[in-house]
Amino acid sequence: MKIVVLDGKTLNPSDLSWQGFEKFGTVKVYDRTTFDPEDVTAVVEKAKDAEIILTNKTPLTKKMLVQLPHLKYIGVLATGFNVVDVIAAQQLGITVTNIPTYGTNAVSQYAIALLLELCHHIGEHNRSVQNGDWANNADWCYWNYPLTELAGKTMGIIGYGRIGKQTGKIAQAMGMEVIAYDIAPSSDTIARYVTLDTLFHSADVIVLHCLLTEETRKLINTDTI
Amino acid sequence: MKIVVLDGKTLNPSDLSWQGFEKFGTVKVYDRTTFDPEDVTAVVEKAKDAEIILTNKTPLTKKMLVQLPHLKYIGVLATGFNVVDVIAAQQLGITVTNIPTYGTNAVSQYAIALLLELCHHIGEHNRSVQNGDWANNADWCYWNYPLTELAGKTMGIIGYGRIGKQTGKIAQAMGMEVIAYDIAPSSDTIARYVTLDTLFHSADVIVLHCLLTEETRKLINTDTI
Repeated sequence: MKIVVLDGKTLNPSDLSWQGFEKFGTVKVYDRTTFDPEDVTAVVEKAKDAEIILTNKTPLTKKMLVQLPHLKYIGVLATGFNVVDVIAAQQLGITVTNIPTYGTNAVSQYAIALLLELCHHIGEHNRSVQNGDWANNADWCYWNYPLTELAGKTMGIIGYGRIGKQTGKIAQAMGMEVIAYDIAPSSDTIARYVTLDTLFHSADVIVLHCLLTEETRKLINTDTI
Repeated sequence: MKIVVLDGKTLNPSDLSWQGFEKFGTVKVYDRTTFDPEDVTAVVEKAKDAEIILTNKTPLTKKMLVQLPHLKYIGVLATGFNVVDVIAAQQLGITVTNIPTYGTNAVSQYAIALLLELCHHIGEHNRSVQNGDWANNADWCYWNYPLTELAGKTMGIIGYGRIGKQTGKIAQAMGMEVIAYDIAPSSDTIARYVTLDTLFHSADVIVLHCLLTEETRKLINTDTI
């Protein structure tokens, strides 16, 4: 069984081990292959004998897949699997899997961290305090940027899957109202689902937990913002 | 009725109005008086005729209060009221109030923002991305500091009042276990109360929502850390 990792470096710069895959076959790890979906040759050259391909960001288009006759399985080493033409893969009998939950908490936490940076500029304030601005302030009280309190404000989440829901949970704990838009709404106790127009009009903060495809860009780039 | 604000500048640099107090009497606002509890003269000179004193950080010690014969009321324009000798005030028949809840959400949000700065260094990363480090990275994937995921880690909160509980609520929503120490435990569904020793041994993150008095400093500055 020949296993090819197309872009090992992006997921594993050197702090993880690929050894676990070796019991399934010979493993060839490429640091990176190509991020260009038109660059068919780069992928086909490296993976032409592969039965298993592992990819993180390298695209696998129909034009590539039809030139990989031994391929049985594509493991996407990420949550989003938009890099793979899954319809072509299905037609060719190639199984595709992703990793749905490895990053739920990490991504939500990061989204909240981005928001709190806008509210407080902690890094800047730290430098300012270290420069003596607090100690030298006559009132021991100052701020270089306005401070934004989130409680009572509304967060609009576009893309309300696992990650969106986790972000909504943190926002609610911070006292925010949470509204959400998703193409496939599911039951939820935290957010109120609204149309995209209502979300744009009501939200103080908008969080994107969706693919930034051309379609999403078009949806978001409307006159309603 | 004479109203004296001892340190108006610390609470209200200029973006708020004191006008609301004028219907209760003549209002004299000093930008600041003194932060030194031994500096009795500074306070007595400014407030000797006052029936009402409003203070944010200016200390009001027993030595000052006995020299303010007209004083009936001290309004502390903050949550913590450790700047006032409340026992002396009670003996002298002076009412003291604080503002218990104006900053609950704001302070908790800020505590979480401090923590997330340690986890992600967003400001630094922003500068790095703006300098082209992301666009020029061969894998579109890099970090200059280790990224710390909080889910599954334990937050120990010392001082578990309104603010501590709100911080605990956000931490729990982020997937953290919450333990707490307080001199007066009250019922709570989020945190498990523990001894200070257990807290120091079990917590990955320690949050202080208590006064940094000498006593607290001594408690915290133990060999158990």
